[in-house]
Amino acid sequence: METQGKRAQRVPRAVREQQMLDAAVSVFARRGFRATSMDEIAEAAGVSKPLVYLYLKSKDELFTACVRREAKALSAAVRASVEAGAAPDRQLWSGLLGFFRYTAEHPDGWNLLYGQARSGGAPSADEVAAMRVEIVEFVTALIGTAAREAPCVPVLADREVRALALALVGAAESLAGSSANGRETAATLMNFAWAGLGNLLAGRPWSP
Amino acid sequence: METQGKRAQRVPRAVREQQMLDAAVSVFARRGFRATSMDEIAEAAGVSKPLVYLYLKSKDELFTACVRREAKALSAAVRASVEAGAAPDRQLWSGLLGFFRYTAEHPDGWNLLYGQARSGGAPSADEVAAMRVEIVEFVTALIGTAAREAPCVPVLADREVRALALALVGAAESLAGSSANGRETAATLMNFAWAGLGNLLAGRPWSP
Repeated sequence: METQGKRAQRVPRAVREQQMLDAAVSVFARRGFRATSMDEIAEAAGVSKPLVYLYLKSKDELFTACVRREAKALSAAVRASVEAGAAPDRQLWSGLLGFFRYTAEHPDGWNLLYGQARSGGAPSADEVAAMRVEIVEFVTALIGTAAREAPCVPVLADREVRALALALVGAAESLAGSSANGRETAATLMNFAWAGLGNLLAGRPWSP
Repeated sequence: METQGKRAQRVPRAVREQQMLDAAVSVFARRGFRATSMDEIAEAAGVSKPLVYLYLKSKDELFTACVRREAKALSAAVRASVEAGAAPDRQLWSGLLGFFRYTAEHPDGWNLLYGQARSGGAPSADEVAAMRVEIVEFVTALIGTAAREAPCVPVLADREVRALALALVGAAESLAGSSANGRETAATLMNFAWAGLGNLLAGRPWSP
């Protein structure tokens, strides 16, 4: 991805740092935070260990920098894919497409965010939790808008709208990485979610 | 929960071990694996640190023992709640009720399983992953049965049935712990999931 400078020692710091993060994301994803050593990351990045420490200070800070970069990139990809202003189902569909395509193309980054950084003990758990809250709020607003435009407004309480958003986000997280075909996965979830939500919004709930 | 022996030193080992696990689950859930010390656990359990080490060897093994116990209890609770032999939607509904009631009543155990033990770096990640596979397979079988009985068999490929099961399990995980009212949460997800699946199984998919 990165273009390499002609003389290795003249690679600008910002570029070098991205190379280290690329290497670190891949090693953390494969080995997990605890098992990963700074030696492995330096080797994968093709730099000396002191240079990794000079730029990124500690394994905790390196991990946090990886998570921050991956979270920002995923968030930007999804945001860019959403057809703002379209009908709620189109917005959801375009957002899911963006999400599943991006995660299928960046399995290491997704593994880091979902498989590791969320954990209560991870150095970056709070940041990942904050990003997730943002996504849940976006989906809550989407479903809320759809509910206001639908005929059954009094049936869907705020609590329920938020719970549906949580369910949808959890379903997307669970499916991400399950297939290399992002469009296929997006279509499956969209069907599941919207055909279900569609019934709810039309006042046709399931009852035991 | 545990009945206390009259003389502390005569408490049977099995009982004492459960008390340590109770304390450890609660401390791990609150503080996370990394931040938790064996001192805190010993204090919370009201025993000496050497006794914790004698019984449970290391923080890793203690954590794994907690996860194993909590996973087994959750799995048993869900299994016991499923109305075996009932129609697929009744089976799913009874299973969701069991799952959300149990997780609402055992927030620490759920936090441990979902918020911490799944992480790639956690000592017990493989076991939790195996339990999850088991649950996904159960739900896959349920949806597969419903699909075979429904009019649209050729529409739902095995891949799609499995993806729907993954979506449903992810949605349930995401919702668990979001409310103290397990029945309410189960009803929300059941509505979302079954009204959606119901459409799919009746050959009425959403299309963009």
